[in-house]
Amino acid sequence: MPDSYLIRPEPADPRLTRPVRGVDHDGREQEIRVVEERPLTIFLNGQEIVTAMTIGDYPDYLAVGYLRNQGMLRPDEVPTAVEFDEELETVVVRTARATDYEEKLKKKTRTSGCAVGTVFGDVMEGLEGLTLPATPVRTSDLYALAHAINTTPSLYLEAGAIHGTVLCEGDRPLVYMEDVGRHNAVDKIAGWMVMEGVSPEAKMLYTTGRLTSEMVIKTALMRLPALASRSGFTAWGVEIARQVGLTLIGRMRGRRFVCLSGADRLVYDADPGHVADEPRHLRRKAAAD
Amino acid sequence: MPDSYLIRPEPADPRLTRPVRGVDHDGREQEIRVVEERPLTIFLNGQEIVTAMTIGDYPDYLAVGYLRNQGMLRPDEVPTAVEFDEELETVVVRTARATDYEEKLKKKTRTSGCAVGTVFGDVMEGLEGLTLPATPVRTSDLYALAHAINTTPSLYLEAGAIHGTVLCEGDRPLVYMEDVGRHNAVDKIAGWMVMEGVSPEAKMLYTTGRLTSEMVIKTALMRLPALASRSGFTAWGVEIARQVGLTLIGRMRGRRFVCLSGADRLVYDADPGHVADEPRHLRRKAAAD
Repeated sequence: MPDSYLIRPEPADPRLTRPVRGVDHDGREQEIRVVEERPLTIFLNGQEIVTAMTIGDYPDYLAVGYLRNQGMLRPDEVPTAVEFDEELETVVVRTARATDYEEKLKKKTRTSGCAVGTVFGDVMEGLEGLTLPATPVRTSDLYALAHAINTTPSLYLEAGAIHGTVLCEGDRPLVYMEDVGRHNAVDKIAGWMVMEGVSPEAKMLYTTGRLTSEMVIKTALMRLPALASRSGFTAWGVEIARQVGLTLIGRMRGRRFVCLSGADRLVYDADPGHVADEPRHLRRKAAAD
Repeated sequence: MPDSYLIRPEPADPRLTRPVRGVDHDGREQEIRVVEERPLTIFLNGQEIVTAMTIGDYPDYLAVGYLRNQGMLRPDEVPTAVEFDEELETVVVRTARATDYEEKLKKKTRTSGCAVGTVFGDVMEGLEGLTLPATPVRTSDLYALAHAINTTPSLYLEAGAIHGTVLCEGDRPLVYMEDVGRHNAVDKIAGWMVMEGVSPEAKMLYTTGRLTSEMVIKTALMRLPALASRSGFTAWGVEIARQVGLTLIGRMRGRRFVCLSGADRLVYDADPGHVADEPRHLRRKAAAD
């Protein structure tokens, strides 16, 4: 099968990992590669919006996707310029329209830590009345995607402690982003879609991370009709997925999975008995969090 | 061995998980338990500080620990009252001193998503000049703790998609907190320590999550001299740990681990050859993120 990736991880990129010396369980010196974690400050026109901790690849897509998923870029708005300054660790996203998110930023004040990042009061902003198209999801595609993604060389397989999110179409993974924050990986895909003018139609998202409310909300904001994960669910993530008609599939391991929203779109065209269990060396190493 | 836990997970608590119906890979109906994810809005005296998404147990400890780890409670400050309102989903933390974090909250505006949560400009606030005490860490304790923690009934083992953090002393796990956000689990331990007047001396923290800069910073702010994890490292997390003298141990699996900071405090008093590999059914199920 020809390689379907438009963007894939680059585990050999020396800017993304760093060799660090330590000792192991036997007291032997060891050098291991660990992922980088860098600040990136995102500006929208003249306004400083946020500082994200990121692995540092694709700062332009991360900035644009973040702003889109926060509703600071309108659904049909494409930036007129995106300027990354590596030395200052900043990205400035420019729009034709004048923007002012002073009030919105004040409200963001009230948001905290991990598995969060969205202002609760605004949580459903942009999702009111949304119903995602009832796109079929073939189990043969799910199994093919899981196999392709899990065997793709990645920073995860190289250094661990990182999350991956993949934009897929049918049985083909298209764009595979990794980042220390799983939300960053999703935002980079959102930014790529905005900048490349890619439609969400008939595509799905695969993530290594948990299916929390925020992951479900971002996927729905991107108008992607399906979200699948190796990992598990939260109750509120399931609730929102059902509300907007997002197909939600979790706990994908070898032949197993559970679908908690949109099960009527599943097309069982693969015999799960014929799907091999994951070879042990390919099992995701860690509770990357 | 008598049970050393002062607080342990309560996987049977019906408020923490919810049964959800779906279908599995064979198209069979399934009911699985998924963890709850609820908003909790934290006030400090009259001021609304943050809304965290949490599983919902120990809202008082979460609020106090969050405020302490954000530097909004001073190192020696114990709240005069902590009022949880279940219906309003709020906690009000009261102090003898008048507080006003208007300026600090404005700066927090610029913080984002997962693996973040700390304002970059303030990242080392409270850590300047800090050197943690050079407390020995015995490998026999590490192995005993990993075994005890991994075999403790938990929401993780019950429903997945959750993070755990455990305050330990010697070979004894003392307080085992779980939450949808791994930062919340740490903050709940910090809050317990503040409210119960527990010293960090000679204790350590064990977490299922990655050793990112933010986890390292929180541990150092709590004055705990060691942090261990099943999961991996980020480069910046290692850098900060070395700066403040925090012993940092990651990738703990069966007999294996890697120590990237404070290796000179390790006391190799266990023969790793005698430590069994983890039984497969006890391996953490998922890339909980």
